[in-house]
Amino acid sequence: MFGARCLLRALRSCSSAPCPRHRPAARVSVRGALGVQSANGERVKVQGWIRSIRSQKEVLFLHVNDGSSLESLQVVADSSFDSRELAFGSSVEVQGQLVKSPSKKQNVELKAEKIEVVGNCDAKAFPVKYKERHPLEYLRQYPHLRCRTNVLGSVLRVRSEATAAIHSFFKDSGFVHIHTPVITSNDCEGAGELFQVEPSSKIKVPEENFFNIPVFLTVSGQLHLEVMSGAFTQVFTFGPTFRAENSQSRRHLAEFYMVEAEISFLESLQDLMQWGADLHTEHEKYLVKHCGDIPVFVINYPLALKPFYMRDNEDGPQHTVAAVDLLVPGVGELFGGSLREERYHFLEQRLARLGLTEAYQWYLDLRRFGSVPHGGFGMGFERYLQCILGIDNIKDVIPFPRFTHSCLL
Amino acid sequence: MFGARCLLRALRSCSSAPCPRHRPAARVSVRGALGVQSANGERVKVQGWIRSIRSQKEVLFLHVNDGSSLESLQVVADSSFDSRELAFGSSVEVQGQLVKSPSKKQNVELKAEKIEVVGNCDAKAFPVKYKERHPLEYLRQYPHLRCRTNVLGSVLRVRSEATAAIHSFFKDSGFVHIHTPVITSNDCEGAGELFQVEPSSKIKVPEENFFNIPVFLTVSGQLHLEVMSGAFTQVFTFGPTFRAENSQSRRHLAEFYMVEAEISFLESLQDLMQWGADLHTEHEKYLVKHCGDIPVFVINYPLALKPFYMRDNEDGPQHTVAAVDLLVPGVGELFGGSLREERYHFLEQRLARLGLTEAYQWYLDLRRFGSVPHGGFGMGFERYLQCILGIDNIKDVIPFPRFTHSCLL
Repeated sequence: MFGARCLLRALRSCSSAPCPRHRPAARVSVRGALGVQSANGERVKVQGWIRSIRSQKEVLFLHVNDGSSLESLQVVADSSFDSRELAFGSSVEVQGQLVKSPSKKQNVELKAEKIEVVGNCDAKAFPVKYKERHPLEYLRQYPHLRCRTNVLGSVLRVRSEATAAIHSFFKDSGFVHIHTPVITSNDCEGAGELFQVEPSSKIKVPEENFFNIPVFLTVSGQLHLEVMSGAFTQVFTFGPTFRAENSQSRRHLAEFYMVEAEISFLESLQDLMQWGADLHTEHEKYLVKHCGDIPVFVINYPLALKPFYMRDNEDGPQHTVAAVDLLVPGVGELFGGSLREERYHFLEQRLARLGLTEAYQWYLDLRRFGSVPHGGFGMGFERYLQCILGIDNIKDVIPFPRFTHSCLL
Repeated sequence: MFGARCLLRALRSCSSAPCPRHRPAARVSVRGALGVQSANGERVKVQGWIRSIRSQKEVLFLHVNDGSSLESLQVVADSSFDSRELAFGSSVEVQGQLVKSPSKKQNVELKAEKIEVVGNCDAKAFPVKYKERHPLEYLRQYPHLRCRTNVLGSVLRVRSEATAAIHSFFKDSGFVHIHTPVITSNDCEGAGELFQVEPSSKIKVPEENFFNIPVFLTVSGQLHLEVMSGAFTQVFTFGPTFRAENSQSRRHLAEFYMVEAEISFLESLQDLMQWGADLHTEHEKYLVKHCGDIPVFVINYPLALKPFYMRDNEDGPQHTVAAVDLLVPGVGELFGGSLREERYHFLEQRLARLGLTEAYQWYLDLRRFGSVPHGGFGMGFERYLQCILGIDNIKDVIPFPRFTHSCLL
């Protein structure tokens, strides 16, 4: 990161460069200021947006937030600082001394020496109103402003932390991260709900197709991960996937994120059988009918219902594949996984039956050259966030939701 | 990650479950085996692909690689293990004892007690040939197999590490990660080379557009990051971006990755002026004409050449904007950054002149409600990899390259 670090440092130092107007004061984030254990009059500069303002006879209280934490920093100022511009939603730069707060509500507060309004806020037009707790449905109309509320700010911070945790988890577990492609020519996977991609009509390309063949937005990185699982034994991807599903449900998006992993030399789902067939019906019923709170694995689906790549269990009349789904209360299917069919002849026969042999010659190749038993799973990241945050509508756990009839910004 | 960790553990334990055929032996990666400091006969199981095979009178030497490192593990076996199936490219499971190697070429080797061929390799058909160093151009024809070579394996491991490092760097620096959308309705940014997205013709949607309006694949997450920089002071995104550029150059892809960051309360580019206008021409010349090795910042481009969002320098007749590019030898532009126009009236006038006021009302809103000076940059991730790895063609630093006339797999 030589370049990024260098440019970043340069860009940052711009804003902290000494300027005749100000005496130098250390710039700290709200989170940083709140974390000071025993404040002792340190001179600091805090920048952020006003979340509340309360004017008393001789004192002015502001709460300033910069998105670094849910909690705001209390600024205490002489009432002479009061002005119409110091309003809810305005951006401010405050210099002063960090001191121990006499109130029990916070450890530390900022005694203002200088308050500068950086950007006004047109309070009448601002859709976020002071002291109001707006319903999430209302905020969805303002994808460019809703991140300024406590609830969306918190959700997006959790989403950011979860993203980092997923990367760390797989890295620490020895997985190689693969950027599987968004644009793909795989179109025959059985999914009908594909988005097709063409150069915008503004561009004149002599050929009919920019890529010579029709291309689509990916519905899963699995097949590409399987390519990689012929070289690395543990791989994962974490990126956007797409479904042109005509659904406005609280569980579906046209663009959503998936965490997918693929592991080589994986031989059986048997260790999942502690969850067992005799348990799952009861639990699924419990889940579906009684909205219980127990996550349930469902395994071994009928071969006829599942895509060609799942491993044949060769289990007689019922004829199932080694698939597993994890159902969780509230959001339904959170994970889907399977062993993949690694045996050349099994796969060849299934592809032939589906008329896909030619299109998937490359996929058959993976079984011709050093094939290994392997399997993996995919997890819907937004559903995971819904699950851990208890948020009812998937549109509220993604920064810019895309679904039928809606692609704002 | 309760679910992921749980399922992963379950999936993993399948492959290491005791089985009557084998005595239990700890499963280790090649990297793990090679890292053992003083091998002392530990019984282990290694799984991977045969990278070389050498048969002597009484001894058989195999090199086994599982993608966890460039180096392979040497397996030493009695010649009775020799078989036609033990061939270059086959996948194997080897059990045996890790011992100190008598050779100076490696610290440790695996004395085989049991070798099982997991998947054969059809050597005649396999495009990767034993002991051949294939040109990168040749390997590009086989996107499903090229990851099995040393060179692509190494590049992809570096790409994975660099991805993790970028996430760590921004997290440690206090940035909030934002998944900016891939599908966007922003189409007027001046970029002509857009991909348009429509549901595949197989689907019947009553409306003309799935989203009611024309939508495109993103060319940059910047404007969406700017939304977030009104709530968080430091944000970044790292994801795929797209250009329908009719170019087959060694520096362009139709789908590539960008690291983009946006920082609020950033007031000037002045600290970059060390690099200065009187230096850059000389250096740029040096770079371009003499292929030198000095990265160069170029700043303050003419307003007329740059998009509407860059901040007006108000600098008289030359009339520039506060933009910065970083040029590096070999790959050219690596970063592009700018201060953004945060002043409502400046932006309003520029949008009006371009006839974009209505389309960018939301963007103007960001300046109506607590606007702050801010700026940021974007870095082409593949160009960054080209730069640090010295790889000439951008198609060799991405797992599945997409460009005009080509979208394999």
